[in-house]
Amino acid sequence: VAGRVTLLTDFGTRDGYVGAVKGVIARAAPGVTIDDVSHDIPPGDVWSATYAVARYWRLYPEGTVHLAVVDPGVGTSRRALACEADGRFLVAPDNGVLSRVLDEATRWTAVEARHVELPADVRTGPSATFHARDVFAPAAAHLASGLELERLGPALSDPTRLAEPRPVREERGGRGVVVAVDRFGDLLTNLPGGWIALASSRIEVRGESVRLRRTYAEAAPGELIALVSSDGRIEIAVRHGSAAARLGARRGTVVRLTSG
Amino acid sequence: VAGRVTLLTDFGTRDGYVGAVKGVIARAAPGVTIDDVSHDIPPGDVWSATYAVARYWRLYPEGTVHLAVVDPGVGTSRRALACEADGRFLVAPDNGVLSRVLDEATRWTAVEARHVELPADVRTGPSATFHARDVFAPAAAHLASGLELERLGPALSDPTRLAEPRPVREERGGRGVVVAVDRFGDLLTNLPGGWIALASSRIEVRGESVRLRRTYAEAAPGELIALVSSDGRIEIAVRHGSAAARLGARRGTVVRLTSG
Amino acid sequence: VAGRVTLLTDFGTRDGYVGAVKGVIARAAPGVTIDDVSHDIPPGDVWSATYAVARYWRLYPEGTVHLAVVDPGVGTSRRALACEADGRFLVAPDNGVLSRVLDEATRWTAVEARHVELPADVRTGPSATFHARDVFAPAAAHLASGLELERLGPALSDPTRLAEPRPVREERGGRGVVVAVDRFGDLLTNLPGGWIALASSRIEVRGESVRLRRTYAEAAPGELIALVSSDGRIEIAVRHGSAAARLGARRGTVVRLTSG
Repeated sequence: VAGRVTLLTDFGTRDGYVGAVKGVIARAAPGVTIDDVSHDIPPGDVWSATYAVARYWRLYPEGTVHLAVVDPGVGTSRRALACEADGRFLVAPDNGVLSRVLDEATRWTAVEARHVELPADVRTGPSATFHARDVFAPAAAHLASGLELERLGPALSDPTRLAEPRPVREERGGRGVVVAVDRFGDLLTNLPGGWIALASSRIEVRGESVRLRRTYAEAAPGELIALVSSDGRIEIAVRHGSAAARLGARRGTVVRLTSG
Repeated sequence: VAGRVTLLTDFGTRDGYVGAVKGVIARAAPGVTIDDVSHDIPPGDVWSATYAVARYWRLYPEGTVHLAVVDPGVGTSRRALACEADGRFLVAPDNGVLSRVLDEATRWTAVEARHVELPADVRTGPSATFHARDVFAPAAAHLASGLELERLGPALSDPTRLAEPRPVREERGGRGVVVAVDRFGDLLTNLPGGWIALASSRIEVRGESVRLRRTYAEAAPGELIALVSSDGRIEIAVRHGSAAARLGARRGTVVRLTSG
Repeated sequence: VAGRVTLLTDFGTRDGYVGAVKGVIARAAPGVTIDDVSHDIPPGDVWSATYAVARYWRLYPEGTVHLAVVDPGVGTSRRALACEADGRFLVAPDNGVLSRVLDEATRWTAVEARHVELPADVRTGPSATFHARDVFAPAAAHLASGLELERLGPALSDPTRLAEPRPVREERGGRGVVVAVDRFGDLLTNLPGGWIALASSRIEVRGESVRLRRTYAEAAPGELIALVSSDGRIEIAVRHGSAAARLGARRGTVVRLTSG
């Protein structure tokens, strides 16, 4: 086996839970490479995980297995999801964490991950509280080993999807919201970069008018600017500072684009 | 070489010390895979490391080398420990960080890691302050390369062991303590899950009576519950919250189990 | 491909940017091993990154590719730097982050990384804000795949170098400054360990006289001491505590060595 598994969780690292997940994968799929993406998602924040996964899932080569466990419903009847999307595999609780992946994929198929085989000496069955170790890691290892998706369980045609608020076209621009705030305090909106008519557009957030720029370099340090982010959407930033702090903005804050 | 080394430290990552440890391993054992478990153990907190290591050491396949360096005694005469336990290798300062591994292992052998060979251009000898780079990493690379444990140094029959407080059986239940608090504020106790008679047991902590549940899902958000953790012990948690904060509990807080 | 790439950034991990960088590398250089060093450099703090990189770049084996992206000037005209130093490769913004590497290397050659090829489906061209994904990661993958440095772009003979303050020899010792403060609150100075005449030297910082010791073990817990660090320079520490907090010291604080 020479596959690659990526990990995204809200576990932090200091308790050793991440080691447990990696150990199960390493044992079930020896030789696999495990890439950490993050263990620092705010606890239980499925939306944050959704945006984070969207930033990398398709940049990895086909065959990669992405494990994403932010799972406030562990121990409830929420299903375990395994899917294949544009050649990559994803394993996660069925709580919406893969919403944007499913939105972006050209084609996908999903199953409920039920038939996961734990190493005999780990547990007699899944624990009530640690499905990352007992369900998701074995499923990821299964896929990284090249076994078929369908063998994990029955087809699942209706995975849970979080509805991202849609931006609204208006006569001379559009109205959207902040959908994510990153570590730098940059505000990612749901406004498509394509809506900008650069020469004559401006952004309004919380009563402030923000200039559109092509790059950070066109802004003075401390200046509030809007630009098209690396995700292709309109982003609001302060060069060498935090737009979130400066504007008192957060997820859900309304953002208006006006042209002309 | 195609071995696997895991790392657990209290170094944080921002100073580059972790890179130094990994570089020494990568040079001495090219091709080895290095899995981070944590670099975020509270500085000098050997007990935390002890519980973290216990969560993953045996889930990894045989032949894995676990390096665990939380070393408040660096530069003193404390010994460097290398051991083999149930087919896995462990390298750590001899300060008790492997206590639970030695408790849990069916069989183990240990040596004092003395004969560690540094690459010639690194240092003429070990520094006084960075044994992770100069002693522990070379020892781990040695083992990951398939060399014999015994070649690292003389047998060590009495590794330092931290005595975990033992739970006490009482007439209608038992008395234990909180032994670890995790990132979510969940309280891990030393009470074995097997002591529970679920239908008729309850837990008391700091004057509060806590209900026993089988899963988080049986609790309302914000409710204080007790359940059997993924470690097989009684754990106290708040669904979507922190039991540590709610109860003002920490390591050493007394926990009482009453049945009937 | 079986190369090794290390990563040092100030991205944090929770937004998924690190996943994007790793994904691009994994796709362009399948089979490569990616070692995280840190994603926790204080945002935009090039000096911190400079000292961190110096701690590990040469401990890795020849052929390793070190990617170091702390890039407050992203989107400006600052160049992208790729170099080979003593057999290791380094890729970074040309903002001084590799200053100490260039100081320490016996020989180095550098190019401006211009001709980086993105996978066709990632972007039509580099974004204005995420050069780690669009420029630096492809350049690192190029080198990890064994391709020639020169093919990345034209020679660059004058990479940006941050001038570290030089320590000054005085009649009976020397005067230097704190150049970095690590996670433990230890103060790294620019004073060479070789300037110490141990029996008769003392260190003065912010009005306090600090004793020179050979190891932490010679100090009482809580005692302020100076010793020769694992970098070969004089370091000031508090055993089981923070010298930075104790002395109110930070980068730039003057440190005086007096002998006799």
